Amino acid sequence: MTPTTAPHSTHISRQFNHEMEAIRTRLLAMGGLVEQQVGNAISALIESDYAVADDVRLNDHRVNQMQIDIDEECTRILARRQPAASDLRLVLAVTRATSDLERIGDEAQKIARHAMQLVEEGAAPRGYAEARHIGYQVRHMLQDALNAFARFDTQLALAVLQEDQAVDMEYRSATRALVTFMMEDPRAISRVLNIMWVLRALERIGDHSNNLAECVIYLVRGTDVRHASFEAIEASLEEPDRRDAT
Amino acid sequence: MTPTTAPHSTHISRQFNHEMEAIRTRLLAMGGLVEQQVGNAISALIESDYAVADDVRLNDHRVNQMQIDIDEECTRILARRQPAASDLRLVLAVTRATSDLERIGDEAQKIARHAMQLVEEGAAPRGYAEARHIGYQVRHMLQDALNAFARFDTQLALAVLQEDQAVDMEYRSATRALVTFMMEDPRAISRVLNIMWVLRALERIGDHSNNLAECVIYLVRGTDVRHASFEAIEASLEEPDRRDAT
Repeated sequence: MTPTTAPHSTHISRQFNHEMEAIRTRLLAMGGLVEQQVGNAISALIESDYAVADDVRLNDHRVNQMQIDIDEECTRILARRQPAASDLRLVLAVTRATSDLERIGDEAQKIARHAMQLVEEGAAPRGYAEARHIGYQVRHMLQDALNAFARFDTQLALAVLQEDQAVDMEYRSATRALVTFMMEDPRAISRVLNIMWVLRALERIGDHSNNLAECVIYLVRGTDVRHASFEAIEASLEEPDRRDAT
Repeated sequence: MTPTTAPHSTHISRQFNHEMEAIRTRLLAMGGLVEQQVGNAISALIESDYAVADDVRLNDHRVNQMQIDIDEECTRILARRQPAASDLRLVLAVTRATSDLERIGDEAQKIARHAMQLVEEGAAPRGYAEARHIGYQVRHMLQDALNAFARFDTQLALAVLQEDQAVDMEYRSATRALVTFMMEDPRAISRVLNIMWVLRALERIGDHSNNLAECVIYLVRGTDVRHASFEAIEASLEEPDRRDAT
């Protein structure tokens, strides 16, 4: 770089850093909204609160709009700035993460719809304790995944992957118990099914939080760990960090 | 371009075009495999064929590997070629599409698992006709979405979006009928639930095919139509094509 071009380049580079920081901040803001949607949907279910559920339903378009806006900004950065190495990974990780956050928003909306149906049909005789419990777990996973993104923390991301295994087990056991209950009390089938769909939605929120955690590992280490086993990912994180070495 | 640089540039540009063509071809090959997985999963269910279902389950890793390989190639193109305008859109559309195809693969695997459970528990007394019917519709949607991608055909993509509305209606009506049936015959609940999860998986395949169709519109027209209503998308396609005008 010659001295003549330095001030101009410094300006460009400062603005570029600012843009990169901005998409990360906007992703985390989107994460905050989605977290709130999930929390409100679970509260609406547990407390049979139709108005809160309806708010979740109506707020989903805000999540969708954030996805479109952030993706547009990512595309703009790719086209104009042509980022490389870790910058390119950040842009790609952000656009992948918006997709998972948007789908978590969809699942929150589904939970809200089932909560509304349960207010209309009358509460289900079983399943709320399980929904509360799994709901608590997946909210925790989502928070951890977003914190891992904010701090580039692969160990916290790894913890999220581990939590997902526990959630899947809880989900299967809760589902089996509800099937047994439905057989004993067929009149409750329709209401219990609403809870089963809620549990499925919560399990999916766990899966998407898992994907977010995988994004963090991709972002920090440059390795695509989707579809790899937990053990393989854990082992790979114990190896020395070789990012941008290629 | 000066005459001196022309042969070199022509070479680069030919190779670039070749790379762009290659990721599209690979995406369509991935689509072919996923289509086959969905078709086999539905056949396995309808014909209570454990071996075919098990094949679907075992082949899912091939779909996953294709996603990772294609995404890696897309990242490499972004880093080295720094594509702009419609080339950038193609790379981004391909990487979005691999994500939906991979999730369709997951849903096919879920259908296969439920088919295997039904072979073990004994066939469900209801629901196969609905699964066959909705299965036929979503396979058709997936094929159309892939053809739309192959031919850059926005009208065919629009037809996929329309089909998805029909599938959602069929799904809701089939689910209601199965709930009524379960109340009449509680002993069949567990088996009928397997069919209900299959229907849900088919409905999700419809949603992901819908996303693929939205990718085609993004690719051809440059507009992000996710979350827009069918009517709004239809109207926007009637406007003159302004791609790359900005």
